[in-house]
Amino acid sequence: MHWLTLEDFEAARRRVAACVHRTPLLSFRTLGRANGTNAWLKCENLQKTGSFKVRGALNAIASLARPRRTAGVITISAGNHAQAVAWAARRAGMRAVVVMPEGASPSKVAAATGYGAEVLLHGTPAEAFREARRLADEEGLAFLHPFDAEPVIAGHGSTGLEVAEDVTGGAAVVVPVGGGGHIAGIAGALAAAGRLAGRGRMRVFGVEPEGAPAMHRSIEAGRAATLESTDTIADGLAPPMAGKLNYRYVAEFVEDVVLVRDEEILSAMRLLLTRAKLVAEPSGAAAVAALMCGRVPVSPGEVVVAVVSGGNVDDDLMVRALREGAPRPVRREGGDRG
Amino acid sequence: MHWLTLEDFEAARRRVAACVHRTPLLSFRTLGRANGTNAWLKCENLQKTGSFKVRGALNAIASLARPRRTAGVITISAGNHAQAVAWAARRAGMRAVVVMPEGASPSKVAAATGYGAEVLLHGTPAEAFREARRLADEEGLAFLHPFDAEPVIAGHGSTGLEVAEDVTGGAAVVVPVGGGGHIAGIAGALAAAGRLAGRGRMRVFGVEPEGAPAMHRSIEAGRAATLESTDTIADGLAPPMAGKLNYRYVAEFVEDVVLVRDEEILSAMRLLLTRAKLVAEPSGAAAVAALMCGRVPVSPGEVVVAVVSGGNVDDDLMVRALREGAPRPVRREGGDRG
Repeated sequence: MHWLTLEDFEAARRRVAACVHRTPLLSFRTLGRANGTNAWLKCENLQKTGSFKVRGALNAIASLARPRRTAGVITISAGNHAQAVAWAARRAGMRAVVVMPEGASPSKVAAATGYGAEVLLHGTPAEAFREARRLADEEGLAFLHPFDAEPVIAGHGSTGLEVAEDVTGGAAVVVPVGGGGHIAGIAGALAAAGRLAGRGRMRVFGVEPEGAPAMHRSIEAGRAATLESTDTIADGLAPPMAGKLNYRYVAEFVEDVVLVRDEEILSAMRLLLTRAKLVAEPSGAAAVAALMCGRVPVSPGEVVVAVVSGGNVDDDLMVRALREGAPRPVRREGGDRG
Repeated sequence: MHWLTLEDFEAARRRVAACVHRTPLLSFRTLGRANGTNAWLKCENLQKTGSFKVRGALNAIASLARPRRTAGVITISAGNHAQAVAWAARRAGMRAVVVMPEGASPSKVAAATGYGAEVLLHGTPAEAFREARRLADEEGLAFLHPFDAEPVIAGHGSTGLEVAEDVTGGAAVVVPVGGGGHIAGIAGALAAAGRLAGRGRMRVFGVEPEGAPAMHRSIEAGRAATLESTDTIADGLAPPMAGKLNYRYVAEFVEDVVLVRDEEILSAMRLLLTRAKLVAEPSGAAAVAALMCGRVPVSPGEVVVAVVSGGNVDDDLMVRALREGAPRPVRREGGDRG
């Protein structure tokens, strides 16, 4: 297996750093008090276009051979990658076509259109994948895989290099997992930088929704798994398969991939809104949810970095998180509500 | 008039910097595109206790003579100063009593209690002021004025010094105004640092709600004004008077104090939630509201810094901002809704 080297990751970082935010790492004492750790948030919800996806999209477009750039690019995305490709293609002066599944979040469709992409709504996520591949052939567009491609992983690795600079010692780094591009980049970059070995090493954990456990299943099966169907509010974590390349990075460099329930994600969204003053979409709150619920094995006082991967959420879902994510009052027996 | 010197402001900053966050200055392109500026947010909503108030509270407590520290401190606050004093007093191992008006936000009362303060709910803001003074005498507690005191202004000046470091050239710095402590500190520190004079100078603007225009009235009257009553959702901007000392700083160093309506504040809260991915309380969104509505005279391409002064908002008000703050659909004549 050929792994991306530190030079590969650093070259990708130089390519994207000029265009993206170096997002802040903010302390989150409420979480730290709850689980006895020294907890931090890597705020990719404050990234350009509202998610980390611009890191990989920019690098993927920058990595295209010049002849491939003329016709433009096409991709498939539930939303954040769509916005990121639209934004990055516009910066590069290229045409961008985005196929989105019919259930895509209205605000994400609007945002991708707003960044100048031609958006096509098509079927389920799996059907949208096939349609994007078909259109790429038909129209001679360069197909940008949303997660399972080396330039995407290399670009996403820049998140890992920033964390490695901001955290000098050991830490548990907890990353939401959809197709696995972000965690592959983060874990791969930390490995390449020598931060996953030796005393005071970092450990990387992935988090998936129970309703879309593609990478979790992949680890059990020993190879990249495909899901028959998915059912979760975390639209960004619900592609119908784990990336084959990403699975290899996860199998090699990631400690474990744990699962969270949708209601735990809603509670984490509310905690981020009310205590961290940050808007996270469901996918972006998954790492905080896993830590709140004790799914990640952390040690007392350990530095913990929860990657808040995106903040693109429709108003109604934010309201739902505020309403349903609130701690439930404990009912006493006998109906005494006083 | 004796103004605080750069040495005063820098000494205060050293005192508070060890305990508070150096909050990020984040670009806010949505606002910049809307008003043709290069717009940034100074994120004091991400500050310890959720607002800038810890800066002044820490410095005020650190400035108390040793004999005064034994009995403890008392203050009056609609909420954010209450939390800040509670938090700063606990750090210093001191007793803190906080008088809050009866209409205080439940989450702010809970937070102040959570930080260890003894909270007394009492009457209107004006009555709560008098009660706090009475209790200070009765119990020998040191009265910490929430805004109208030199150590508070000096501590709040640290926001200004951070902006002065992060923005190298000229800029319009827009600050929400309640009693005027924050704007006095920011403008005073920028003046002391020589940043309000010469080519490429900074200009400081204040923003008040139409329903609580104490500083605006003070400027008209030529002296610190008291209001008969206030009516605004921005609880942090509704003290019953402008600080006397703060008024002098504003009269000397601030360009103008402009007004915004509550519905404009709700729209700004929604814009911050949906586009900046940040939670601001109504008071914290006032500067963004003023800029969105064109109340601050800015030039094309000018660097604009909106101070987002706090993020402590009850769930219901966040929901209200999402619902009522949304852009209204334009109704066409004749009832054609198609």
